Amino acid sequence: MSTHSFASDNWAGIHPEVLTAIAEANVGHQPAYGGDEWTARFQGLAQQLFGADAVAFPVLNGTGANVLSLQAASPRWGAIICARTAHISTDETGAPEKTGGLKLLTVDTPDGKLTPELAAREAWGFGSPHRAEPSVISISQSTEFGTVYTAAEIRALADFAHKHNMLLHLDGSRLGNAAAFLGTSLAELTTDAGVDILSLGGTKNGLLGAEAVVVLRPGSAPGLPHLRKINLQLGSKMRFVSAQLLALYEGDLWRRSASHANAMAVRLADGLAAIPGARIAHAVESNTVFAHLPAEMAARGQQAFAFGGWPGGAPDLYRLMCAFDTTEADVDALLAAFVGQAS
Amino acid sequence: MSTHSFASDNWAGIHPEVLTAIAEANVGHQPAYGGDEWTARFQGLAQQLFGADAVAFPVLNGTGANVLSLQAASPRWGAIICARTAHISTDETGAPEKTGGLKLLTVDTPDGKLTPELAAREAWGFGSPHRAEPSVISISQSTEFGTVYTAAEIRALADFAHKHNMLLHLDGSRLGNAAAFLGTSLAELTTDAGVDILSLGGTKNGLLGAEAVVVLRPGSAPGLPHLRKINLQLGSKMRFVSAQLLALYEGDLWRRSASHANAMAVRLADGLAAIPGARIAHAVESNTVFAHLPAEMAARGQQAFAFGGWPGGAPDLYRLMCAFDTTEADVDALLAAFVGQAS
Amino acid sequence: MSTHSFASDNWAGIHPEVLTAIAEANVGHQPAYGGDEWTARFQGLAQQLFGADAVAFPVLNGTGANVLSLQAASPRWGAIICARTAHISTDETGAPEKTGGLKLLTVDTPDGKLTPELAAREAWGFGSPHRAEPSVISISQSTEFGTVYTAAEIRALADFAHKHNMLLHLDGSRLGNAAAFLGTSLAELTTDAGVDILSLGGTKNGLLGAEAVVVLRPGSAPGLPHLRKINLQLGSKMRFVSAQLLALYEGDLWRRSASHANAMAVRLADGLAAIPGARIAHAVESNTVFAHLPAEMAARGQQAFAFGGWPGGAPDLYRLMCAFDTTEADVDALLAAFVGQAS
Amino acid sequence: MSTHSFASDNWAGIHPEVLTAIAEANVGHQPAYGGDEWTARFQGLAQQLFGADAVAFPVLNGTGANVLSLQAASPRWGAIICARTAHISTDETGAPEKTGGLKLLTVDTPDGKLTPELAAREAWGFGSPHRAEPSVISISQSTEFGTVYTAAEIRALADFAHKHNMLLHLDGSRLGNAAAFLGTSLAELTTDAGVDILSLGGTKNGLLGAEAVVVLRPGSAPGLPHLRKINLQLGSKMRFVSAQLLALYEGDLWRRSASHANAMAVRLADGLAAIPGARIAHAVESNTVFAHLPAEMAARGQQAFAFGGWPGGAPDLYRLMCAFDTTEADVDALLAAFVGQAS
Repeated sequence: MSTHSFASDNWAGIHPEVLTAIAEANVGHQPAYGGDEWTARFQGLAQQLFGADAVAFPVLNGTGANVLSLQAASPRWGAIICARTAHISTDETGAPEKTGGLKLLTVDTPDGKLTPELAAREAWGFGSPHRAEPSVISISQSTEFGTVYTAAEIRALADFAHKHNMLLHLDGSRLGNAAAFLGTSLAELTTDAGVDILSLGGTKNGLLGAEAVVVLRPGSAPGLPHLRKINLQLGSKMRFVSAQLLALYEGDLWRRSASHANAMAVRLADGLAAIPGARIAHAVESNTVFAHLPAEMAARGQQAFAFGGWPGGAPDLYRLMCAFDTTEADVDALLAAFVGQAS
Repeated sequence: MSTHSFASDNWAGIHPEVLTAIAEANVGHQPAYGGDEWTARFQGLAQQLFGADAVAFPVLNGTGANVLSLQAASPRWGAIICARTAHISTDETGAPEKTGGLKLLTVDTPDGKLTPELAAREAWGFGSPHRAEPSVISISQSTEFGTVYTAAEIRALADFAHKHNMLLHLDGSRLGNAAAFLGTSLAELTTDAGVDILSLGGTKNGLLGAEAVVVLRPGSAPGLPHLRKINLQLGSKMRFVSAQLLALYEGDLWRRSASHANAMAVRLADGLAAIPGARIAHAVESNTVFAHLPAEMAARGQQAFAFGGWPGGAPDLYRLMCAFDTTEADVDALLAAFVGQAS
Repeated sequence: MSTHSFASDNWAGIHPEVLTAIAEANVGHQPAYGGDEWTARFQGLAQQLFGADAVAFPVLNGTGANVLSLQAASPRWGAIICARTAHISTDETGAPEKTGGLKLLTVDTPDGKLTPELAAREAWGFGSPHRAEPSVISISQSTEFGTVYTAAEIRALADFAHKHNMLLHLDGSRLGNAAAFLGTSLAELTTDAGVDILSLGGTKNGLLGAEAVVVLRPGSAPGLPHLRKINLQLGSKMRFVSAQLLALYEGDLWRRSASHANAMAVRLADGLAAIPGARIAHAVESNTVFAHLPAEMAARGQQAFAFGGWPGGAPDLYRLMCAFDTTEADVDALLAAFVGQAS
Repeated sequence: MSTHSFASDNWAGIHPEVLTAIAEANVGHQPAYGGDEWTARFQGLAQQLFGADAVAFPVLNGTGANVLSLQAASPRWGAIICARTAHISTDETGAPEKTGGLKLLTVDTPDGKLTPELAAREAWGFGSPHRAEPSVISISQSTEFGTVYTAAEIRALADFAHKHNMLLHLDGSRLGNAAAFLGTSLAELTTDAGVDILSLGGTKNGLLGAEAVVVLRPGSAPGLPHLRKINLQLGSKMRFVSAQLLALYEGDLWRRSASHANAMAVRLADGLAAIPGARIAHAVESNTVFAHLPAEMAARGQQAFAFGGWPGGAPDLYRLMCAFDTTEADVDALLAAFVGQAS
């Protein structure tokens, strides 16, 4: 089996430029817990990228970024409206409920994307002491199915949220892939579209392990410095977390890596479309390909590369993820394996 | 001011051997979330170091290791007996209570060390539904004051705990420093002394950011795989966390680094003892020196190197920490600064 | 407007026999917190009603009974499978999540009733650290829509739950109404049908304020004595809580009251069925009538008696509840009001 | 053994006037969950008693009142400064930590009473993300040892709290006893003395089971309507909770009952003082007598009346509580039993 895989962008390693940045930050002593120069520089970068009001809090992993964002943006009696398929509901072991103390109000969606109409199904009961108060709408960009919200779609959700005194949270663990697909800046899909608080991804786009909570609307998430520690997301040698984020976002590494992964997904989807029996399940708009595959075809592919099905989904549904280091040769070898050709 | 400091061992960077290990792990794809080869190797190493029953769970930071350990080892109605000065009580923003759902029963100690007699002050009320059930005794090795428990002292606490159906947790964020001071193996201070569950430190001894929960007594901490995720401590690219731990603990790096830091602390304490007006506050048994310093002397030192006072302690009490990379020249320069000599 | 209502069985007062029982318990001093004679007697009664293994814990309100039951029956990493319309999900302000630390896995149902097939949609992912472990299936008897599970239907759910190492919880805030409708004993719908843990209702059937958690399968809910206190459900003068439960369940008061309320609901539904424009929404199997009503008809009714719509439901959907003290004259007056006749 | 006891004021029953009030409230239907007339009247009464800004939230038990008060008055990152002997720390099974999500910062006191100087030991570290933010000082009136704060002592604590942007919470489960002892109104010891939020007791002074959270400073406890439900403290038939509180506080029943219980405590203490070997441990300022008793004397007393020791205290320390229904004959019989006379 190849040393590459299509199992997850999390299976990939560290982009070489990121590793270099970590090494370059390894000089002398620096104040711990975020008092260091790299973290200060990342805060400055966040303002460049997301606007002068942005306040950035580097954290250690994606679930941490989400739980922290949502908790900080909600009162103790708050509830989060999200797609039933949202990562925060399906893949985080109940951490938003158990650690964040939040209630999730889930909505069925065709493609993992909320709309104001769909969100409205749970956006009611404000002020009633018998109902957890809908306080945040949370969307994933790109979604768990690889689909992408346009800036206008996000703006519509933000307007809906704000009209009801809710905030809009964006789980951007793959925000770069969406921006690369749409050809926009990061701000166009967040600050400019009305997002209030952002989980800014990094690990899935080539970092060792670094994410950030970025507060875009002042005052929308009080207590973050304390809550980051309480939620076990404050690293002591934070400079190395911030250095990773700087390496990714200071230049165009995020876009280069995301564009490449997206292109590999398109190459893969195009190839699959030409294979009888395979059927693409969702629009391929980022680095994710969902496909219905005959069992034998899937098994042939899995002999060549690791990838998996979709727990809770149809038994013939598979998820194929491309990473910053996925090569054309990888894609072609997988396609060849699917059709039973030696690669 | 120097690029080194005496503020915290967390201000130091990454030991070069650790950085090399991270780079060496950066090859190809690996299963995420701990399904990788490095994590499997670290599990094997944990058994070598701590006995065949040891089960290791790499995590992202020290507060995470502590909250996860204590929560996993306690029922929902459990309470933790610890020193009033324990890191879990004074430096973790209430995370054990707020995220772990634990109650801390704190005991005053002269030097940060519990004894069975001291623990007994809170070890009562078992079975009463009006009292959170004492379920774990938690000790720090080395303590927040730099003092060290001998193996016999730990064994006495373990026996006391077990006699009352409690478990013994050891916060070993500086376990290496204690073992280096005492000239023991890690097991002699943990498994062999009756410790049930261990927060194994790493970051303070030269890692980028890696700790581990190590369950030493089978069955003492059910649910850890789930609880690690719920407590936001499961990194996706876990191989790089495990690779750090391997670099530290597979050979003697942990002891080399800890011994060096300890030696620097002794050098510093010896120097201070010779300075009129300075007074060492606690036995110097690891890489920590607590000293009462006249305000002018402290100010002179702080112009040369960063270090701090002790929140909640006497106003003239200062903590001076040595790290793996503290040099004799650093120590001598600080001592010179204290007495007003150009360094 | 009448001093009676159709708003909720919670709007009714205390059954006179219950008030007498409270007064009769008001003699001398008794051990607090459940150490009293009445609580001991209620424990004995619970064994008579639910089998020799039953252990009863009187509590203060229905949300308390549910949160306590579900928390005690679940590990910290557990999740609860329930109907999307379950009271625990829609009417408890997120208390199961926020206070109980539970995740709810909700399933759409046509009539508020789960089946093994419906529960199976969320009964997967056992053992995965990325998914909160489905630990309990929770059903309401009667349901929020007034429909009722037969003993066979409950048994099928219990068998399904147990096959997957889950427990079956029954929210029996209106268990008496279901048993009265089906003509069964309480045990036939609980212990005998495989229910593991029960929220036994009382307040909605004529008590001042008393419910009980009843553990039916030994060992399924450890820590209840502590957890009851932690969940703020341990009253000091518990004898008066237990005395209420005794008054309801020691004789046939529960069945008399429930049968009467059920009969009033049938009378009301029969009357509504004869009114053009009104449409009964769910089978009337307890003391609840859900009906679609034209707005003017609803308004006419609400001038005579208080009752309400159904938050989150269709705008023309109304809930009409009968209580132990609802009279035939009340029903007839409401029906008259609906059609615009003076009552 | 007598049907009376000296074990706890919680062992007493319901004052007859309260039982009458419950019966008088048992007429017709009333809106549930506090929308009833009695709750509205109690809100009006609270304003009369505590000032025009007072907002009252009836709740079900004392632990509920405390956890709800403290949680509502604190941010998620807040900590509570209290005496080490405070009921919230020693007798509530960790509910403030586990259900309230609070950290307690405990202070040793000679007599259960905080002072600004004592509170200052933990009132530091404001703004540091490494420390749970001291947000509330909580005192008990009367204290767990039966001692009483004067209005001036409370004012000093309120001023200290406010100077540090903290709030002052008063656990007034026996507030009536303190006011009766001092001859003050309830407001003089709360609103007028700077208390921000109050747990107003009832059960220990003759109610079946009713307490209230009373917010005295506007805005100091947002979200209370939601949090009361989340903390399982919202009863459906709230009119009967409010009716109890009205019966106690609308006239002088609270003072009559408290004064009587206090007088019985003085009679008991005076009698004990005359018995060789007995030693009163704390000033007798309410309905509580703490005494050191020789083992044989205690045993003789316990053959006549139930009472207990003090968990965690000296082995010869006993607590003797008087209730609204303790008689002079009870006291004299206990004193006679202590000295071995037939009563």
